[in-house]
Amino acid sequence: MTVNAPGQRVLIGAERALARCDELARITSLEGGIERVNLSTEHKIANALVSAWMHEAGLDTWQDAGGNQCGRLEGREPGLPALVLGSHLDTVTDAGAYDGMLGVMLAIEVVDRIRSSGRELPFALEVVGFTDEEGTRFGTALLGSRAFAGTWDDSWWQLADRKGVTLRDAARAFGLDPDGIRSAARRSEDLVGYLETHIEQGPLLLDAGKPLAAVSGIAGARRLALTVTGHAGHAGGTPYDRRRDALVGASEIIVEIERIARRTGTVATVGRVRAFPGGVNVVPGVARFSLDLRARSDAERDAAFEEIEVFALEVCDRRGLAWLAEEFYRADAVTCSPTLKNAVEQGIRSTGDDDPTTLWSRAGHDGMAVAAVTEFAMLFLRCGNDGVSHHPDETVTRADVVAALDAFTGAVLAVAESRR
Amino acid sequence: MTVNAPGQRVLIGAERALARCDELARITSLEGGIERVNLSTEHKIANALVSAWMHEAGLDTWQDAGGNQCGRLEGREPGLPALVLGSHLDTVTDAGAYDGMLGVMLAIEVVDRIRSSGRELPFALEVVGFTDEEGTRFGTALLGSRAFAGTWDDSWWQLADRKGVTLRDAARAFGLDPDGIRSAARRSEDLVGYLETHIEQGPLLLDAGKPLAAVSGIAGARRLALTVTGHAGHAGGTPYDRRRDALVGASEIIVEIERIARRTGTVATVGRVRAFPGGVNVVPGVARFSLDLRARSDAERDAAFEEIEVFALEVCDRRGLAWLAEEFYRADAVTCSPTLKNAVEQGIRSTGDDDPTTLWSRAGHDGMAVAAVTEFAMLFLRCGNDGVSHHPDETVTRADVVAALDAFTGAVLAVAESRR
Repeated sequence: MTVNAPGQRVLIGAERALARCDELARITSLEGGIERVNLSTEHKIANALVSAWMHEAGLDTWQDAGGNQCGRLEGREPGLPALVLGSHLDTVTDAGAYDGMLGVMLAIEVVDRIRSSGRELPFALEVVGFTDEEGTRFGTALLGSRAFAGTWDDSWWQLADRKGVTLRDAARAFGLDPDGIRSAARRSEDLVGYLETHIEQGPLLLDAGKPLAAVSGIAGARRLALTVTGHAGHAGGTPYDRRRDALVGASEIIVEIERIARRTGTVATVGRVRAFPGGVNVVPGVARFSLDLRARSDAERDAAFEEIEVFALEVCDRRGLAWLAEEFYRADAVTCSPTLKNAVEQGIRSTGDDDPTTLWSRAGHDGMAVAAVTEFAMLFLRCGNDGVSHHPDETVTRADVVAALDAFTGAVLAVAESRR
Repeated sequence: MTVNAPGQRVLIGAERALARCDELARITSLEGGIERVNLSTEHKIANALVSAWMHEAGLDTWQDAGGNQCGRLEGREPGLPALVLGSHLDTVTDAGAYDGMLGVMLAIEVVDRIRSSGRELPFALEVVGFTDEEGTRFGTALLGSRAFAGTWDDSWWQLADRKGVTLRDAARAFGLDPDGIRSAARRSEDLVGYLETHIEQGPLLLDAGKPLAAVSGIAGARRLALTVTGHAGHAGGTPYDRRRDALVGASEIIVEIERIARRTGTVATVGRVRAFPGGVNVVPGVARFSLDLRARSDAERDAAFEEIEVFALEVCDRRGLAWLAEEFYRADAVTCSPTLKNAVEQGIRSTGDDDPTTLWSRAGHDGMAVAAVTEFAMLFLRCGNDGVSHHPDETVTRADVVAALDAFTGAVLAVAESRR
C-alpha cells in the first residue's frame, strides 16, 4: 500500500469526510432535522458545495442532466474509461447524516489521496453524488442513477410530489432540461465499473464485531401503493353491521403483512398510511398505505406478496371493501461483480482483516440502477445505535471511517492492479 | 292545525328548504364536494345568505360573537323569552347537503308559516344557524353552541387548525372580537327552550319504515388523540427482532378497538391516522390516530375506553412502544326535556303517525351544548342510502321533508299550547 499517506494524513481525510457530512446535514428543508429531496433548493446548494469539494480534490466537475453532481480526474492518459466512485446526496425525511453522503465524501477523499500520492491509474476516476436514491419526493427511487445508467422512462416526468408539482416542472424549475435527460446516460465502454461505500443500515456488522463488509448483492424490492375502499359514514349514526370501514380493514392487513414477512424471511414495511376523508367523526371510506417489500431473491419477494394479497382479498371480501394494489417501483435482486467484489475484499484485507465478511444488502442502492450500464460492487461500513438508519440517531465511529477510507482506497488500487 | 297553510303552500315550504340546502351546498371550499368550516370565507358567505332568507321570513337578524347566524320574530308582545329553533351551518369534509343545514332551513320555514298564519305566540321565535357543530377545522366541536350556551372556555383560543392558524387569529380575521365572546351567551330566563330537526344519520328509521322520530337523548362522547411511539429505522436494514414499528402496533389497536366496541354495544371510530416520518422506506417511529367513542351512557363509554387502554398498553409493552392518550373533547350523555319531547311527539302525531318512534342519538348535536342554558328536544328525519351521512350520498325524500316541516310546526304550536 505504497500509496497510503502517513497516518496523520489519513486521519485528516476521514475527519474531513465526517465534518463535510455535518456540513451537508445543515442543508435541510426540515427544521431541527435533515431532509434534502430531489430538485429542491437544498439539492442545488448541496451540489454546489460538493462540486467545490470535488474541485478541491482535483476533479473537473459538472452537474449532469439528471441533477447528479459529477467530477472526473483523468488517468495516466486523458479519455480513459472511468472507475466511478460514489453514492447519493439526497435523504429521506428526518434522516441521518451518513446514509449516502458519507459514501460520496469518502469517494472524494479516495481521489484526493490517490492524486496526492502522484500515482497514475490505468483508468480515470470519477465521483458521482447521485440525486434521488431515496425517492422521498416523487415516490419513485433511483431517478439519478437511472438517468446515469440510461434507463430513464419518460413516463416518470408525470410523477407529482405531494403538492402536485410534476417531476418535469420541478426539473425545469431546478434549471434542468427534461428533453436533454439522455445526455446524462453513460456508455458501458466509457466505464470500468462502479464502487460504492455505504453504511450498513443494519446491526449485522455490530453483531459480528467487524467494521467492514463486502456486499454480495442487493435485495429484490417492490414498492406498492395499496388502497382499500369502503364507504364513508357518520361515526355516530352508522351501526357496525352496515359499516364498510376502510381503515379497520387496512389495519388488519398491516398487522398480517408483518406476520407474513416474519414467517417467510422477507422484509416488509408499511411506512405511510392515510384515512379519507380524515374527519375525527367520519368512518373512513378509503385507506391508502404503502408497502415496501424486500427479499434476497425475487421469487421469495413475489411469493410473499402473493400471500399478502390473498389475505387482503379475504379481509376485503369479509368487510365489503375493494382492494387495489398499484406497484410504483420494482427492482429485481442484483448481484455484485465477482471481480469488483474481490477488489473490495482486497481493500478490506489491507486494513488488517484477513477474513472479510460478506453481507447481502437489504436496502436498495444506486448500484441497482448502475448495474444496467456497468458492473458494480460495494463496501459496507458498520453503523452504531443498533444499526439504525433513516433516523437522526444514525452514527459511525471515526475509527470505522478511517478503516473504510483505507479499504475503499485499497479497493480502487486493487482494480488498478487487475487492469495493469 | 288551523295554522297549516293549504297543501300547495306546504309543498313550497319543503321544496324551498331543499332548494336552499342545494344553494348552501355550492358554498364550499372543496372542489367537487362540500366543505364549509368554522370562520372560513364560506362560513361568512353562508351566514350572509341565511341572514337574507331569515329576513325574508320576517326575522330580525344578527350574527353573534361566536359566529352563529341568528334571527328573531317577536311573540304577541316584544321582549318575551324565545323558543329557539335551529341546527348548524358548518360541515365535515366532503359532506352531504342536509346534515345541519336542513334543520336551519326548516326552522326558517316554520317561522315563515307561523308568521304568515297571523297567529301570535306566547313567546318569541328565534332561529339559530350554529357554526362549528362538527369541529372540522379546530378539532373541538360545538364551539358555536357553546358560545351560545355561555360555556365558552378561553383556552380554546389557542386551538390551531392544520395550517397552524389559531382560533383567536381565525376569529379576528373573520371579523369577530374574541374579547367579546361572552356577548353571545344567552340567559336561561330569556329562553323557553331549543328545538332542532335533524336527519337521523343512521338507518333505524329506514328499517322501521317511518319518516320521523322523537329523540330521547344524545350519546355521551369522547374524542382522543392517540399516539404510539417506537423508533424509526431503515425499512431494509432493520431486522424484525429490533423493530419498534409504531404503525403495526397502532394497527393492532385499531383492529381491537372495533372488536371491543362491538362487544360492549358502544360505537368507536378511528377516522384519522398518520405514520411518521412517513417515508415509503422508513419503519414508522410514531403513529398518531384519533378515536371517537360514543355510548348511550357515560359509564358504558368510559368502561369501553378502559378496555381499549388495557389492550393498547399490552400491545405497547410487547412491542417496546410508548402509549399516549390525549382527550380533546368530551360530552356527557344528555337527556331531552320530557315536556319538549312530548311537544315533538304531538307534532309527529299531527302528521298522522299515532305511535311516534323514539330514538337515542348516536351522533352529537348542538343540543348537547345548548342543554347547559335551556331545555331541548329534537325531531329526527329519515335519510336514505342506508342512513349514510357525512358523505355526499346523504339524501332525504321530499315527502319526508314535508312531514318534518308539518311535525316541526306542530311541535312549536304544542309548546305554545302548553304555555298559554
